[in-house]
Formats: sequence, C-alpha cells, structure tokens
Amino acid sequence: MTEPSTHPVSLTVHVPLDAGRDYDILIGRGLIETAGARVAALGGRRAAIVTDANVAALYGDRLRTSLERAGLGSGIVTVAPGEGSKSYAGYAQVCDGLLALKVERGDLVVALGGGVVGDLAGFAAATLRRGVRFVQVPTSLLAQVDSSVGGKTGINAPLGKNLIGAFHQPRLVLADTATLDTLSEREMRAGYAEVAKYGLIADAGFFDWCEANWRGIFSGGPEREEAVAACCRAKAAVVTRDEREDGERALLNLGHTFGHALERITGYDSARLVHGEGVAIGTALAFRFSARLGLCPGQDAGRVANHLALAGLPTRLQAVPGGCGDADALVEAMAQDKKVRDGALTFILVRGIGQSFIAPGIDRSEVRAFLQDEFAADLRP
Amino acid sequence: MTEPSTHPVSLTVHVPLDAGRDYDILIGRGLIETAGARVAALGGRRAAIVTDANVAALYGDRLRTSLERAGLGSGIVTVAPGEGSKSYAGYAQVCDGLLALKVERGDLVVALGGGVVGDLAGFAAATLRRGVRFVQVPTSLLAQVDSSVGGKTGINAPLGKNLIGAFHQPRLVLADTATLDTLSEREMRAGYAEVAKYGLIADAGFFDWCEANWRGIFSGGPEREEAVAACCRAKAAVVTRDEREDGERALLNLGHTFGHALERITGYDSARLVHGEGVAIGTALAFRFSARLGLCPGQDAGRVANHLALAGLPTRLQAVPGGCGDADALVEAMAQDKKVRDGALTFILVRGIGQSFIAPGIDRSEVRAFLQDEFAADLRP
Ligand SMILES: NC(=O)c1ccc[n+]([C@@H]2O[C@H](COP(=O)([O-])OP(=O)(O)OC[C@H]3O[C@@H](n4cnc5c(N)ncnc54)[C@H](O)[C@@H]3O)[C@@H](O)[C@H]2O)c1
Ligand SMILES: NC(=O)c1ccc[n+]([C@@H]2O[C@H](COP(=O)([O-])OP(=O)(O)OC[C@H]3O[C@@H](n4cnc5c(N)ncnc54)[C@H](O)[C@@H]3O)[C@@H](O)[C@H]2O)c1
Ligand SMILES: [Zn+2]
Ligand SMILES: [Zn+2]
Repeated sequence: MTEPSTHPVSLTVHVPLDAGRDYDILIGRGLIETAGARVAALGGRRAAIVTDANVAALYGDRLRTSLERAGLGSGIVTVAPGEGSKSYAGYAQVCDGLLALKVERGDLVVALGGGVVGDLAGFAAATLRRGVRFVQVPTSLLAQVDSSVGGKTGINAPLGKNLIGAFHQPRLVLADTATLDTLSEREMRAGYAEVAKYGLIADAGFFDWCEANWRGIFSGGPEREEAVAACCRAKAAVVTRDEREDGERALLNLGHTFGHALERITGYDSARLVHGEGVAIGTALAFRFSARLGLCPGQDAGRVANHLALAGLPTRLQAVPGGCGDADALVEAMAQDKKVRDGALTFILVRGIGQSFIAPGIDRSEVRAFLQDEFAADLRP
Repeated sequence: MTEPSTHPVSLTVHVPLDAGRDYDILIGRGLIETAGARVAALGGRRAAIVTDANVAALYGDRLRTSLERAGLGSGIVTVAPGEGSKSYAGYAQVCDGLLALKVERGDLVVALGGGVVGDLAGFAAATLRRGVRFVQVPTSLLAQVDSSVGGKTGINAPLGKNLIGAFHQPRLVLADTATLDTLSEREMRAGYAEVAKYGLIADAGFFDWCEANWRGIFSGGPEREEAVAACCRAKAAVVTRDEREDGERALLNLGHTFGHALERITGYDSARLVHGEGVAIGTALAFRFSARLGLCPGQDAGRVANHLALAGLPTRLQAVPGGCGDADALVEAMAQDKKVRDGALTFILVRGIGQSFIAPGIDRSEVRAFLQDEFAADLRP
C-alpha cells in the first residue's frame, strides 16, 4: 500500500433530475475546505450542520469555518454516532436543534457524516418548515457511493428499518475523499461491498476494474475518486430513470434481501455485523443461489466470493459472530422485508457478473433449502 | 333555529392539481356511511383510520364498518383529543400504529376528525414508507372549510406551531356535514370565523350571503353544505394557483398574524382561546388596523366586527379570558411568526370587505401604537 496521497483530482457527476432539481456531485480531496463558497452559491443566509460526535470532532470546525468565511450563518447539531440516532428521538433532536439555530425556509441544512447522518439530516430537512434545501457532505465510503445520492431519506421505526422517511434530493453533494483517511478499516471494507455491487449489478467491466484496482481505493490513490465517481454515475443513472423505486431502482438491492435479514437477526448490533458486511454475505449468497437455480455460472459465484474475501469481507453465514440462527429464522426475517408480496419473496438474482435482474415470486421453500445447504456446508479447506 | 334536517344535498368541489394529483371534495350529510365504496375505488387493500378519542366514540365504528363492507382491511389508531397530539410523540404513535396495522405502500390512511387529526394523520401518511395516499374525512367545521383542503400537513415543535410537516395532498375529501351536529357550539363558532374569512379575503358577495344565511350553517340547513362548498372552492382556487405559499396563498392568513400571537400568549390553552376565536379577534383587528392606516373605510371594520359578534365570536383583545399581555408582548409574539423578515412584519391588510392584500414591511412601532390604543379603548356602551 502507498501513503495517502494529496493528488488534486476532482471529478463531477451531474444528476439530471427534472423540475430544477438536478444537482452536482463533486468528488475530490479537500472539498470540505472549499465547501463554503460552493454552498453559499446556492443562496440562503444560514447553513446549519448536522453531524455525529465522531465526525464533529474530526471535521465539524473545519466545515463550519469554511461556511462562515463564505458569509453563511452556521451552527452545529450533533447526534450520537450509530444507527440508534436514526430514530424518532434523533429526528426530534435534529429538528429542534435546527429550529434553535433559526433555520428558515430559504436556508440550508448540511449533512456531514456517514449514511446515518445523511438519512437523518435529509429527513429533517425534508420536513422542517415543510421542506428546506440540503447539502450532503458524506464522510464514509458507503455514504459517498450510495446513501448520499438518490434522495432517499428517513429513520427507523421499532417495527423495522427505514420505514419512515421522504424522497428529498440534495442540492449538492460534496464527497471529500480525504475524509476517508480517518475511516476505520472495517467501515472502509463495508463501504467497499457497495462499490463492488455496482459492477455486479450491470457493469462487468467495472468489476474487472475493481479486481485490479481495489487497493488504491483503500490506500487513497486516484483510484478512490475514480471508484466513487463510477458508483455515483451508476446510481445517478438508475435514480434518474426510476426515482421512486417503482422498477429498476430495486436492482440496487442486490445482496440486500439476505443482508437485511442478517442485520435483523443480529439485532442491528454493529459489533457483530455492519450493513456492508451483511451486503457482502448477501451478495455472495445471491450469486450462489442464482448458480444453484441454474441461472448463473458457478465460476462467477466463486469469483465474486473470492474478490470480496480478498478485500477482507465475509461471504459466508458461518462468518457472522455469534451465529445467525437457522434457515427458518432467516426466511422468516426476509418475509418481514418491504419487498414481500403475498408470501412470495422478491430477490435480485443474476445471470452472471454484471447481469442482475428482479426476480419476483421466488418460493420460500426453495430459499429455505438453499440456506440449509449453506449452513451445512463444510468450510474446511 | 330549525331542527337538524336530513336534506340530501351533496356537492362536489374539484381540486385541479397537476400530475395526477387532482382530487374531489364531496360535501353532504351521511357521507361516512358510503365512504367504503368511494375509498375502495381508489385502490389498495387496506384503509387504516386515524382519529381522536372523541371522534372515535362517535363515528369510528361507522366508518370502519363502511370500509370493511367495501372489502378493505381496516383498523383504527386513536390519539388523545386536542392540539397536544400534534407532537413528535403523537407522530410516532400514529406511524407505529399504522405500521402495526400493516399499511403498505399501495394502501391508504383515512384521517377522521378535526384539523388536529387531519394534520397529524396527513403528515404520517406523507412519510410512512416514504409516502402513502390518504383520505380526509373532516368532522369539524374548521377542518371541512380549511384544514382538510390544500395539502398542508404537520405537527408542532416546542419552538412553535406547524414547524414540522410536508405538503401532501389527499386523494379524496369526504366532508360529512351531518357530523357537525355533534360538534360543540364553541367549536362550531370557531370554524365559522374561517368561513367568514373567505368572504372578507376576496368575495364581498359571499360575506353578504353569510350575513343573511349564517344561522342555517349552524342549524344544519342546506346553507351548511353551500357554505362548506363555497369555502372549499375558494381555498382550492388559491391552492391550485400557489400550492407552496410562495405568494397569494398567504392571503388565507387574514386575521392570523394577530390570531397566532394571541394563541401563543395564551399558551395554546384551548380553555382560554381556540384557534378560530383568535382568528375572529385577529380579523377584527386587521380591519381596524387597516382603517387606522387609512386603507379601509371605518364602516367596513364596524360591519365585520358586528357580524362576528352576532355569531357569538370575540372581536376585542379585552375578550381573551385571563388577558393577553400588553402591546409589547403581542408585538414580540408576532415577531416570532414565520412571516417575519428582517424585523419588519408582514400583514394581510384590507382595502375593504373582500379586498385583502399582502402588506410586507409594516413597521413594528406602527403596530405597537395601534395595539396600545386597542387595549386602552373604552368598551362601555
Ligand atoms: N439513503 C440511502 O439511499 C441509503 C443507502 C444505503 C445505506 N443507507 C443508510 O446508511 C446508514 C449506514 O451508513 P454508514 O455505513 O455510513 O454508517 P454511519 O453513518 O453510522 O457511519 C459509520 C461510522 O463511521 C463513522 N465515520 C463516518 N465518517 C467518518 C470519517 N470520515 N472518519 C472517521 N469516522 C467516520 C461514524 O461516526 C460511524 O461511527 C444506514 O442507516 C443505512 O440505512 C441509506
Ligand atoms: N392544514 C391546514 O391547512 C390547517 C388549516 C387550519 C388549521 N389547521 C390546524 O387545525 C387544527 C385545529 O382544528 P380543529 O379546530 O378541527 O381542532 P380539533 O381537531 O382539535 O377539533 C376540535 C375538537 O372537536 C372535537 N371534534 C371534532 N369533530 C367532532 C364532531 N364531529 N363531533 C364532536 N366533536 C368533534 C375534537 O375531538 C376536538 O376536541 C390546528 O392544529 C390547526 O393548526 C390546519
Ligand atoms: Zn446498502
Ligand atoms: Zn385558521
């Protein structure tokens, strides 16, 4: 691995939504330092920051200084780190904090942090005074390649994840790739599961590129900006065609039906499993399940699992610390998913690398049998 | 007064919004009994009712039976009556209740009650699973003529009323005018302040009609449906032209800058002042203030106050039980209003009955002097 570099690469991805809602995603090192001028260019008198305590300590003052130098009134609302803040209580805390900072209808909310902060601050912005504009400054790899793009915002309910929310597009996304230098290895890997996912969904060439270049993403070479931009382009294209997930946007859930079930079974305990780890296992399972159904070559499934493992990600049910129940429990957990209709399960399956499709009506018993065999698999080398 | 009649009048007002969001407002006696078929015609498998305990006891079973007879799965979420339910806690209770009733993305939420229930259930619908459709079944006069039309939904924050919310248009409004037979006289009068307001804003002919026919609205004659329809037509026209209150929709706030200040000063204690009473006083003040500024004939101000008083509404600051502070306190309370920019106050003023206009930049000292004189006025006959 090389030392974190300071190359000046800065890339732009445009998200061409209609009705004046189109926006730019800027990707490069040091964007926080120049955020003020870019945010001020959007208009408004105030830009209030929402962040979590970890990110506040690292980047809060820097962003605030940049905003204030550009003449924007600012202030920071800080929530506790972790998924627990994506709750009714966290939502009330953020809304009340923004109101105390006197955010008016023409002002801006700036979400500085990972996906938790982006989803929470975005939902608060969507509903504060019936909607104020917001800017995403994603600081985790997952947030830079996935959650900050596409306008889904929201919180969790006791009955399930992301059940409350709004579609609210940001006015600007500033993905400062230098912030990833302080991200833990584990969170970096978890975000990388989503990077690889984009290749697997519909771009075999990008998966090839990932196999050759993934180390540069982790070490902070120019591959990092290239990868973030490629992912944002892929997600923006899907979101532009299907903003409200009536169709193809569901492909972005490759690996997620299994993954969400694993998260639910492990009680959303990030000590055991973080989202991206669930996605990595889920993606490997989606490929092996597709192979078992005769849809996808077994060697593609092997290649995917090998690559994820090389990047340090889990690919097997057996890898979940503390276990993840049995086949019945997993099928039950999947049946609670949003994508269930009339008892049949909808999966994203594959015909090979880069060839995913929506498969509704998958029989529960088929899934259960597959998972039973997965649990029984002899993993000795 | 005549006995509540059972005349079969049923009127329809169409709200012609774009992008498939247009909807009908049906106005007539007994619409709850036939709600099932009309709601079922919108599609969806479930229609979950949100209501408050008062209205649940009177109409909950009746509406639920009608929905279930039409083949819709149903269920009721009941909140405590009163403004206190329009809170973060009330919002969480309604969302969790709807999720427990297994409301899915294609299903419907039915708001049965006054403006509190409509605003709360509407906001829950706007954000449950990032948006499900909803139907308004308003049961207070205020809700039938004002809050159920126009798509503003939301809750209060500790820092102020209606500060959190969403624009979310209903798919259908069923204003069952027979439900008003059980509304208290006081709530009926409060709603009537908003009815008269529509004439005062832009329709002098409707104010004439109100002077001649207001008793029929209270007693349940056919004038009730006519009045509700006239108000809905007026509000729908404004909302269609200015859905997000960038301009003329603000005219609907005639009487509300003063009124909201009074509500704030009396601590939103409905034992002292309900919204419509604040609006009645505020409307009388807006006319007298306009007259004082030489904008409006003094006789119009007198005519408005007389009519409101005849209908049993307060028109003087002195009428607020327990008092309402002094001129400074009222100006301060107004300055906390959303419509304040750079210290200058925006008012809705009038050139006469039916001739309101938006007046930005009204000097605080001008308002304070007016209120001082109002407080000092000798009210002995
Ligand atoms: N809206 C969407 O479309 C979408 C898509 C995918 C995921 N999500 C949501 O995203 C969330 C997960 O996001 P996440 O993985 O970023 O989690 P996260 O926001 O909790 O961040 C992970 C951890 O990394 C820390 N962190 C963030 N940036 C850092 C940095 N630069 N340096 C050091 N530490 C840093 C955070 O404080 C946190 O402890 C989930 O709630 C998920 O539902 C949303
Ligand atoms: N969304 C908008 O555009 C808009 C416009 C104006 C007002 N509002 C909101 O509306 C709310 C006030 O509405 P409201 O005056 O209807 O108050 P409300 O909903 O509290 O109803 C008043 C009282 O009447 C009872 N009630 C309702 N219908 C009844 C019936 N048919 N029989 C017997 N009792 C009945 C209720 O239980 C309550 O106790 C406020 O929160 C205000 O902010 C919203
Ligand atoms: Zn994901
Ligand atoms: Zn009102």
